[in-house]
Amino acid sequence: MSQASANLSPDAAVHDAATRALIEAGDPAADGRALRRCLGQFPTGVTVVTARNGERLVGMAVNSFAAVSLAPPLVLWSIRRESSSAADFLQAGHYAVSVLADDQVALSQLFGSAHPKRFELAPWQAGRHGAPLLAGAIAHLECRLEQVHEGGDHLILVGHVERYARYEGTPLLFTQGAYGVAQELPAPATSQPAAGASAGQSESELLRDLIHASQRLSHDFESHRQALGLTLPTSRLLNSLAEGAGSAEELARATLLEQDEITDGVAALAQQALVSTDKDRLRLTPAGRERRAAIAARADDYMKQRLGGLVESDIAAFQRVLQALGRD
Amino acid sequence: MSQASANLSPDAAVHDAATRALIEAGDPAADGRALRRCLGQFPTGVTVVTARNGERLVGMAVNSFAAVSLAPPLVLWSIRRESSSAADFLQAGHYAVSVLADDQVALSQLFGSAHPKRFELAPWQAGRHGAPLLAGAIAHLECRLEQVHEGGDHLILVGHVERYARYEGTPLLFTQGAYGVAQELPAPATSQPAAGASAGQSESELLRDLIHASQRLSHDFESHRQALGLTLPTSRLLNSLAEGAGSAEELARATLLEQDEITDGVAALAQQALVSTDKDRLRLTPAGRERRAAIAARADDYMKQRLGGLVESDIAAFQRVLQALGRD
Repeated sequence: MSQASANLSPDAAVHDAATRALIEAGDPAADGRALRRCLGQFPTGVTVVTARNGERLVGMAVNSFAAVSLAPPLVLWSIRRESSSAADFLQAGHYAVSVLADDQVALSQLFGSAHPKRFELAPWQAGRHGAPLLAGAIAHLECRLEQVHEGGDHLILVGHVERYARYEGTPLLFTQGAYGVAQELPAPATSQPAAGASAGQSESELLRDLIHASQRLSHDFESHRQALGLTLPTSRLLNSLAEGAGSAEELARATLLEQDEITDGVAALAQQALVSTDKDRLRLTPAGRERRAAIAARADDYMKQRLGGLVESDIAAFQRVLQALGRD
Repeated sequence: MSQASANLSPDAAVHDAATRALIEAGDPAADGRALRRCLGQFPTGVTVVTARNGERLVGMAVNSFAAVSLAPPLVLWSIRRESSSAADFLQAGHYAVSVLADDQVALSQLFGSAHPKRFELAPWQAGRHGAPLLAGAIAHLECRLEQVHEGGDHLILVGHVERYARYEGTPLLFTQGAYGVAQELPAPATSQPAAGASAGQSESELLRDLIHASQRLSHDFESHRQALGLTLPTSRLLNSLAEGAGSAEELARATLLEQDEITDGVAALAQQALVSTDKDRLRLTPAGRERRAAIAARADDYMKQRLGGLVESDIAAFQRVLQALGRD
């Protein structure tokens, strides 16, 4: 990334710098899970990387993808040495990258699994070297495997891009242990917003307000969770467990969390005695149900306070307009 | 990423697969800019990577960062061979990665620039090997440079993480040529939403509606831009030019676009004769002003149609609630 020299005031650069609270720090050799959570602060897209080795198709969800070079055109990704597909990717000599769209969570979960019928469930077309290109992706990159580097418990596969294709759509995100969507950051306001919304309100003003409100709510709910000793993952797990999910598969579907995050989250809940195992299924303990009720009550209080100055009819109108805006 | 085997129906996986429109495809050797746009479909976070080489501090905004391995703890990023800082990064033997938060666009632009006072404008603390750790970041990784690989016009710098620190906050994004923010994907609805919004509406329902509405608007405005031969970058450039921005610096600040994206966007506008250069400043041509008016009119029509079934008073109430929700 390069940017023109910006005439920044120091104020602009230091904004909010003093208010960031440390969550955890240390030596990664001492706590691999904490390192993983830290690495998860860097958001990524989600790709499915595939190859054809003879008659065998391999494919997996990958978020370690990175662009390397434009001329020559190079990209890279990393595969676990112990992966059952590693040998096939090396032997195939070519691979294809599909960058997933924000409506492809199910596809990401499918290729994050060892489901034996992945390539029957997901529609695809063969690229020039036979590697499957997944339909519905927002980009395809067909690559010749050019270099393989040692990378600890992974191998780094550098590929030469032989063909690219870009499609309409917006990307699926993986951020802080959960799936997400990218929201453009509205361009800075250049003038005062109009006093009231109307059909003439500019798109950027309305979008800015919508994005700002949803970010504000996300941040505030995060603070509430923290005050109750929970995180986004553990609070989603509590909710899903309360609604009857009890196996790893059910929790993955209900929470949209990554499997490692589910494992860690369940361990954290068990340590607080909020969850227990009953005949191979996870269940909330009475303390777990109490904690969940406390979150709901707190969110309730917050909404009452935040919307307190407004009349009921305004809130009902808000809901009508929001649904009109979201309608397909 | 790994996921539990999900019992997906084929329907879930193929959803929307047939409706993705191709924008451009080809051989990257023939069109490096098109390849860059295609690579930009993969969203990333934004980091600032820094090092201390003797008395000299170097630092740059980087989005080619990727996690490699947990045990041993390895990460990587790529630097242009021609970068004036490349030699310092190699000689320093250590580097530090700061993962930027969503309120640090100005900092990203500062470290994307060659501003000589970067380290005076941005607050930081020295890590154990002297590399600056930027204040306000949501993660710090202090690394020993372990391997350097050839990567075409870049070098791939693999680092061994010696210390990590994770902070509260949410990440800044770089996606499809622009800065963005990550929005969690709400967990799937488990029951019918309540008929009307109230203080008791669950956080996830309200957030889901807000996120859905803003995504819907983003998608629809994108379609309008496409119909007018514009993209998000070119339409932001048109707006900023109309509001008086005329230099690369002013456009970067006003549009929140990356410099390459500004260069490409201005070239595209010039090719359509929508912009011209006047005494080293860019200016809209009469055709450019017309095109901008056409976008505004189209957005206006769209909003009228979308909100058409609603009374004015509902829309005014919507605005009041939205502002109450977004208030600090």
